[in-house]
Amino acid sequence: MKAIVLDGKRLILSDVAVPDPGQNEALIRILYAGICNTDLELARGYMDYQGILGHEFVGIVEKANQPDLVGRRVVGEINIGCGLCSWCRKGLERHCIERSVLGIRNKSGVMTEYISLPVKNLHTVAEELSDESAVFVEPLAAAFEISEQLQIEPDQEILVLGDGKLGQLIARVLRLTGAEITVTGKHTEKLQKLAKYDIKTNQNNNSILKSYPVVIEATGSAAGLQQALRHVAPRGTVILKSTTADRFQIDLAPLVINEIMLLGSRCGPFAPALRALQNELVTIEDLITGIYDINDFQEAFALAQQPGSLKVLIKINPK
Amino acid sequence: MKAIVLDGKRLILSDVAVPDPGQNEALIRILYAGICNTDLELARGYMDYQGILGHEFVGIVEKANQPDLVGRRVVGEINIGCGLCSWCRKGLERHCIERSVLGIRNKSGVMTEYISLPVKNLHTVAEELSDESAVFVEPLAAAFEISEQLQIEPDQEILVLGDGKLGQLIARVLRLTGAEITVTGKHTEKLQKLAKYDIKTNQNNNSILKSYPVVIEATGSAAGLQQALRHVAPRGTVILKSTTADRFQIDLAPLVINEIMLLGSRCGPFAPALRALQNELVTIEDLITGIYDINDFQEAFALAQQPGSLKVLIKINPK
Repeated sequence: MKAIVLDGKRLILSDVAVPDPGQNEALIRILYAGICNTDLELARGYMDYQGILGHEFVGIVEKANQPDLVGRRVVGEINIGCGLCSWCRKGLERHCIERSVLGIRNKSGVMTEYISLPVKNLHTVAEELSDESAVFVEPLAAAFEISEQLQIEPDQEILVLGDGKLGQLIARVLRLTGAEITVTGKHTEKLQKLAKYDIKTNQNNNSILKSYPVVIEATGSAAGLQQALRHVAPRGTVILKSTTADRFQIDLAPLVINEIMLLGSRCGPFAPALRALQNELVTIEDLITGIYDINDFQEAFALAQQPGSLKVLIKINPK
Repeated sequence: MKAIVLDGKRLILSDVAVPDPGQNEALIRILYAGICNTDLELARGYMDYQGILGHEFVGIVEKANQPDLVGRRVVGEINIGCGLCSWCRKGLERHCIERSVLGIRNKSGVMTEYISLPVKNLHTVAEELSDESAVFVEPLAAAFEISEQLQIEPDQEILVLGDGKLGQLIARVLRLTGAEITVTGKHTEKLQKLAKYDIKTNQNNNSILKSYPVVIEATGSAAGLQQALRHVAPRGTVILKSTTADRFQIDLAPLVINEIMLLGSRCGPFAPALRALQNELVTIEDLITGIYDINDFQEAFALAQQPGSLKVLIKINPK
């Protein structure tokens, strides 16, 4: 089967064997995969990952021990825990020390025709939800993770740094709390997409004069943290979302002096993300910049790296 | 009057005028001042402070509008707020944007014979408490600040990085919560002081194999954060206490991946620190490495900078 493989720092289209699902695993035929910033960082050397890339997908279960799953359309949680440790027993496989992570660590990714994944990682997708929207469950779950970690008060003002894919999803999720959201970014077109949700925007964050009790850093760049620290109020919280291959020179004194809480935030819960999409609490159609056939993956990745781009999807094995 | 003045990066003994206290201020005759790591950092250029150094003191009120204060022995909170902003109205002058800070920002310090300070900053000291112990109220308050910011669970294991003045005080305060405390550091003699409090110690932190839900960084060095991130469990908390003039190169990815909470922590509440000393919940006599006359300040500072030193006091105007 065809697969987009990260080989050193090169992406190549390879021919690989169809995986053989284990005891509690399903075999899934991939319909669409999404390109995430993490994929672009992996290709720059982040995590030293080698192998089939990709962790955002929607697919059809082809084989599984649970017969009612076969033929169902699914999305899948990307962390695969040991199943035995205290994290796994709490349902937090995403913090299991021994975990593998789909397309990121010790587990082949989804930019291919078939994958295997534990049945317990799967969530079936309602009929009404389009394939394209379903691919967004994984990144949308990462946005919901913020509310899992921090109580967002409905009367709070929140600043989101970054108008990219993740910043867009975070703003769309956090507005549901009732809080007043401001998104800063560099791109007029991206910021304009937020107007219809009554989300405030600010194209030049140097013009932000006030400070915020909560700042979400979703710039995708290591420099975003310093920016966040400039805009957060004393005793405020900075949520750090960007993972990058870069190291960053930081002046920690303001963090201590102003008693800032800096909270790293990664993968989140799939169920609320799926509900939010199915109930149209969050809509994402306007975030798709392009859809490419797997054979045209080079163009897909080139587009995904353009500063003006949002989500680029790869069509793998359409119905 | 004599004063230890930071002039550029040099410390000199100067002759300066006795301050003239304002309307709501007291004039205080200093008995003892303590040398804090922050003083050593200020002398290295941190905060660009110039003027009389020092913020840890105990003294006698010589003049005040409140007659019952005159002649009383006091310690004093070091942040002086505008009195009008929302922080000041909450009693959190220590986060007022316009604040001055004793011997650190826009306010002459305590390594001199007399200071002026707002009456509301003062706390009277019980007869039984020695002058030497009273000087510790300010740094001890910084240790109590941790419990003000984070709920310490009595069944938790806590790792304190740093066996210096601050690490010692933090360990002595946090053991009162019932939690199991381990202190790591470089100095056998310093670590030995913790044995009588049933605090575990570890002289070579490379030998720490497990990870902790709470790690307190009190190394006084910018590199302490990276060390703390190595020893904190997923979803754990790192309390960052060190303020230094250095910037630090940090790899932020582990913070995001493991969803670590990094919490800056600075000045704390005086009242619990004073109560803890007066009630002997915390004892500190063994933390005094030397006491010097103000005329011998150069020797005092030289000793304070020795790796083996703990607290060095300056005797200003003894009874």
